[in-house]
Amino acid sequence: MSITLHKGENCGFTENVIVSPPPKQTSKSRQTIFFENPPRISGRMAVVGEKEGKGPVGAYFDKIVKDAKWGEKTFERAEIDMLMCAIKGSISDADLSETDVQLLITGDLLNQLTSSSYVARELSMPHLGLYSACSTMSESLAIGAAFINAGYFDTVACATVSHFATAERQFRYPLEYGCQRPPYAQWTVTGAGSSVLTKDGKGPRITSATLGKVIDFGTNDLNNMGAAMAPAAMSTLLSMFKETDTSGDDYDLILTGDLGKLGSDILRDLMLEQGYYLGQNYIDCGNIIYDVTQKCYQGGSGAGCSASVLNSFVLDKMERGQYNKIAYLATGALMSTQSCYQGETIPCISHAVIIER
Amino acid sequence: MSITLHKGENCGFTENVIVSPPPKQTSKSRQTIFFENPPRISGRMAVVGEKEGKGPVGAYFDKIVKDAKWGEKTFERAEIDMLMCAIKGSISDADLSETDVQLLITGDLLNQLTSSSYVARELSMPHLGLYSACSTMSESLAIGAAFINAGYFDTVACATVSHFATAERQFRYPLEYGCQRPPYAQWTVTGAGSSVLTKDGKGPRITSATLGKVIDFGTNDLNNMGAAMAPAAMSTLLSMFKETDTSGDDYDLILTGDLGKLGSDILRDLMLEQGYYLGQNYIDCGNIIYDVTQKCYQGGSGAGCSASVLNSFVLDKMERGQYNKIAYLATGALMSTQSCYQGETIPCISHAVIIER
Repeated sequence: MSITLHKGENCGFTENVIVSPPPKQTSKSRQTIFFENPPRISGRMAVVGEKEGKGPVGAYFDKIVKDAKWGEKTFERAEIDMLMCAIKGSISDADLSETDVQLLITGDLLNQLTSSSYVARELSMPHLGLYSACSTMSESLAIGAAFINAGYFDTVACATVSHFATAERQFRYPLEYGCQRPPYAQWTVTGAGSSVLTKDGKGPRITSATLGKVIDFGTNDLNNMGAAMAPAAMSTLLSMFKETDTSGDDYDLILTGDLGKLGSDILRDLMLEQGYYLGQNYIDCGNIIYDVTQKCYQGGSGAGCSASVLNSFVLDKMERGQYNKIAYLATGALMSTQSCYQGETIPCISHAVIIER
Repeated sequence: MSITLHKGENCGFTENVIVSPPPKQTSKSRQTIFFENPPRISGRMAVVGEKEGKGPVGAYFDKIVKDAKWGEKTFERAEIDMLMCAIKGSISDADLSETDVQLLITGDLLNQLTSSSYVARELSMPHLGLYSACSTMSESLAIGAAFINAGYFDTVACATVSHFATAERQFRYPLEYGCQRPPYAQWTVTGAGSSVLTKDGKGPRITSATLGKVIDFGTNDLNNMGAAMAPAAMSTLLSMFKETDTSGDDYDLILTGDLGKLGSDILRDLMLEQGYYLGQNYIDCGNIIYDVTQKCYQGGSGAGCSASVLNSFVLDKMERGQYNKIAYLATGALMSTQSCYQGETIPCISHAVIIER
């Protein structure tokens, strides 16, 4: 490899990143499953908060909720409402009714997946609860597509949500504390995204899924999610390129979840080290959901970040013919406050799906 | 229906249980997936703590760890070690090596699935993280079997864990507080169970999976998990009976996860109401893991409860020919402390798999 690497050239922050080779691929190691009968994304909806609505892709969201509590007593209840709204909206968008949906696959950031559970309680659908932090949207799409491709179900709803105020309360400090945020921090997106997958239809097809491995390069700063997650994105992206026999140029868009500005710069560097140049067709949802004037530092994070951007801006452009083939890699930091207090570093994961028109 | 129902006859505790009909089945509602190429359980391991080792099924467990911290600094680290030990043991039991396992599907009770994530970090396998509380073992078996049946992977490890001390810290009170337990409480099992599923082999076959719906009959007492979960077990059991065209008599064993004495009595009552009598072939893992002298009141709970009993006592008896066909319904209470503080009731779920020799 003759590429000259400038570590951290773009980001000016590499102290926490231990640059090491990705996990070895053994002969039987295969992360990608291909779908012979690729399921369609027939319906979608993205619901976000006011701040997200004012961001660069704000015009693409289906619903913008100005009140962070959405008329409820708690932020948690508002989060549940957003997830419900996105799921119901995506079902309508697919011209289906709730009774047509045979399986619901959701997850969220709250302990014990409370938003998912309370939403599933109201919907009479079999439910699979997932957790891979902010990688939940692509994990749910991967499992949903795998189940439809195998003929187990015809219609599956996949969704996730996050909320700035509930995430701050749970993972960092109560908002009332007024804690200062470091410059490498990200802002948890208040938003939900839902996709309805169907066996037939006219929407974009999910043609393969690459299931991620848990990767930990030694970052232990709860505020620096981008640096923690970039190696996991690299690991999955490398496996996806290799196993689908593609490279960056084969995609109209490579979309990561919520690495933010810093994390996506690190991913570019890490991929360069491995011999892959990520060009203008690589964007990160966390990097485009807010603009610099919104004081979100490195950008957005949270399970709802890529779920809402994928189900609005990205799939909208895809339906209009602007993108024909995209790779979507949501990225999740699997840390808990308890394990960080106990001195552990942050394990991360990224699941990928390829979506084609 | 001419059955005379004696509500709570066996349990003497029905105040919290709102007896209501199970969710309506719509025409397109189908919870069961059938496996034409049923995957085999080729390897298994159960690791438990000292208390579980002294219980009625103690002799069946593969490894009994006497030190609750297993030589580690924290209970959480010990929990991670137990899960790792069970997974590695089950891989050896299947006469395979780690590099043969193509997918790892795990979940646990800790916030953000910390045990699962830290175990997956050490194993170079694609990882799917699940959460359905104490129903995680059957959720992972369902997804694992579905993926093998569809030909996506040949070898999948499915595992879960729980630990009394970490669960008390997270869900109730620190142990040091010496909180009194009410008589309807259960005891979180310290234990892990892992099953290795393979495409071929000689072990028992998973022939179908019935994915549960989230059910909430209005219980809001964090100590009364059995009463909260029984309606979810009923819902899934009814769907399984209906969709597989079977009844209680068709199984050598119907095994619920961790309803405990009280919860399994409630399940018997609820099923009677629906016209099904559960006889001597119905047992609950939580009900058999401790004996009354161990002061665990209604019995065991936790994701590791049914995972360890299934992967030892039950599959051992199956391999010896004592059981030919069993239905395994792990049961999960999806409450979080946060949602309970906010006045919510406890949503529950139960996923089922049918295992045949």
